[in-house]
Amino acid sequence: MTDVRFDILGIGNAMVDVVTRVEDTFLSRHNMHKGAMILVDSAAAEALYAAMPPGTESSGGSAGNTCAVAAVLGARVAYLGKVADDQLGAVFAHDIRALGVHFPSPPLTGGAPTARCLILVTPDGQRTMNTYLGACVTFGEADVDEDIAAAASVTYLEGYLFDPPPAQAAFRRAAAAAHRAGRQVALSLSDAFCVGRHRAAFRDLVAGHVDILFANETEITSLYEKNTFEEAAEAARADVALAALTRSEAGSVILRGTDTVTIAAEKVKVVDTTGAGDAYAAGFLAGWTAGRPLAVCGRMGSVAAAEVIGHYGARPEGNLKAMMARALG
Amino acid sequence: MTDVRFDILGIGNAMVDVVTRVEDTFLSRHNMHKGAMILVDSAAAEALYAAMPPGTESSGGSAGNTCAVAAVLGARVAYLGKVADDQLGAVFAHDIRALGVHFPSPPLTGGAPTARCLILVTPDGQRTMNTYLGACVTFGEADVDEDIAAAASVTYLEGYLFDPPPAQAAFRRAAAAAHRAGRQVALSLSDAFCVGRHRAAFRDLVAGHVDILFANETEITSLYEKNTFEEAAEAARADVALAALTRSEAGSVILRGTDTVTIAAEKVKVVDTTGAGDAYAAGFLAGWTAGRPLAVCGRMGSVAAAEVIGHYGARPEGNLKAMMARALG
Repeated sequence: MTDVRFDILGIGNAMVDVVTRVEDTFLSRHNMHKGAMILVDSAAAEALYAAMPPGTESSGGSAGNTCAVAAVLGARVAYLGKVADDQLGAVFAHDIRALGVHFPSPPLTGGAPTARCLILVTPDGQRTMNTYLGACVTFGEADVDEDIAAAASVTYLEGYLFDPPPAQAAFRRAAAAAHRAGRQVALSLSDAFCVGRHRAAFRDLVAGHVDILFANETEITSLYEKNTFEEAAEAARADVALAALTRSEAGSVILRGTDTVTIAAEKVKVVDTTGAGDAYAAGFLAGWTAGRPLAVCGRMGSVAAAEVIGHYGARPEGNLKAMMARALG
Repeated sequence: MTDVRFDILGIGNAMVDVVTRVEDTFLSRHNMHKGAMILVDSAAAEALYAAMPPGTESSGGSAGNTCAVAAVLGARVAYLGKVADDQLGAVFAHDIRALGVHFPSPPLTGGAPTARCLILVTPDGQRTMNTYLGACVTFGEADVDEDIAAAASVTYLEGYLFDPPPAQAAFRRAAAAAHRAGRQVALSLSDAFCVGRHRAAFRDLVAGHVDILFANETEITSLYEKNTFEEAAEAARADVALAALTRSEAGSVILRGTDTVTIAAEKVKVVDTTGAGDAYAAGFLAGWTAGRPLAVCGRMGSVAAAEVIGHYGARPEGNLKAMMARALG
């Protein structure tokens, strides 16, 4: 049996975020649904960028953010995702490797540029995202290193990766390799609209291949097409061994078998919710792979989320490790 | 006579900042002088970047920052500087144009990449900068649009532009065009080490071609090789029509003929001093070109500086215009 060399292997769309502040009127003028992630092509991304206020660029991608936060918390982390051989790809690779994350994926040459996510943050701290997938659309089965999946306690897949078509096959290959080695597979549903686009495939994946499910309230009710959080949560309980369901300022609920653990949200001034769910999953999995009790895993998720919500951008800015140590006493 | 179409024309090294937080030990390990700007070549920049923690990319450049802040404050602004035809160049151009700044300089093609400044922020909020000049070294006389200088109330030159050799000629051409049209020329000394590298040329420029001088305490004492701020300030008073000298938390002193106006610094929690001097010059010049009294110009400089000191990065993050309106009552 392969030795465990990583606590977490993250697989996702590798991209650079362009974060800017706008008024709500900017969203309505551009027919955007606040809080959602939509895919845009190169021309639409250029047009939107031209209309946007000045921004700040930082590494992003949902699973990339989770890997970065988990690495900051001391987890051993690997990441697979496709950037291009360009300046923004170099930024992404630098930032994740600088945290000690193993990132072996070679950049795409001669194709589309590195993906970017144009993120509009409104005064209420909500983020609305427009993603140009660029090089990410080439990520497929061949990009999955089965040895890494076999050597990672948890293989973590972001739901957004269901958007570029070849990635679903990559998902299944990574999950199969992890399970053959006796490891766990985690999935984050990422976005209610993303769930809506791929509901049947997600339902199949969750029921048959996922051990740990991360979702927020709108995502889980969309997945199971339920009217209430409680009904959707019970459906998740029946489907997966472990579910961590986040409810914004109402905290989170963790379900395992007949156990239900409720976690309060940390008190925080909301500046920018970008990456809150990613950070929650990171804190949770850093605790889970270290063998901490569920209540501590959930608390670690809440504290990590609170750190990134308190400033612009999805990656930690403050000393998260010290903050976590204080929070856990 | 040419109509005034711009309040400020800024000319400087166009670059993208890479901002990261480090402990003081990182600076000593890399033999860096805290608070200084040094020039690095491409290889040294790559090596340093590889050793740096994750960063955040944002448009920078001293005069670029000044132009951005002045535009936010409502001034009519133009900017000249050289980026390359690459992703970081597109970021710089987008960000400055998004603020309504006229930026006609064509990008360099087939040469060095867009300049970047690797900025290390220590826990005390001090920033230490390593600049790879890239495409900026090609900025020369031919890049100065005399019509714009003639149409701008103040042509503002950053001292850092003295480092790439062809730029000194560009400086002089811009200053001459401005003066022929009856406009004013402003200079920021930028950095005490930069002053040390080019003292004779700066002294000649300041005495013969500068109307408004911006400098901090270490820069002005270095320029005039004086032991005290007071001696250096009197030397500046004799040399230029107007000098605005900043003294960090001690505020600033404005000298015009026999007048001396002292301005208190705003109270602010120091997060990152990157761009503080640039923002001061922006606030001051936005007031000056709008015909405000010197005391108001200085206050506008202090308020603008306080905004950028309060967060990471050199460009405004909060609503500076509203903050300024509140501060000025």
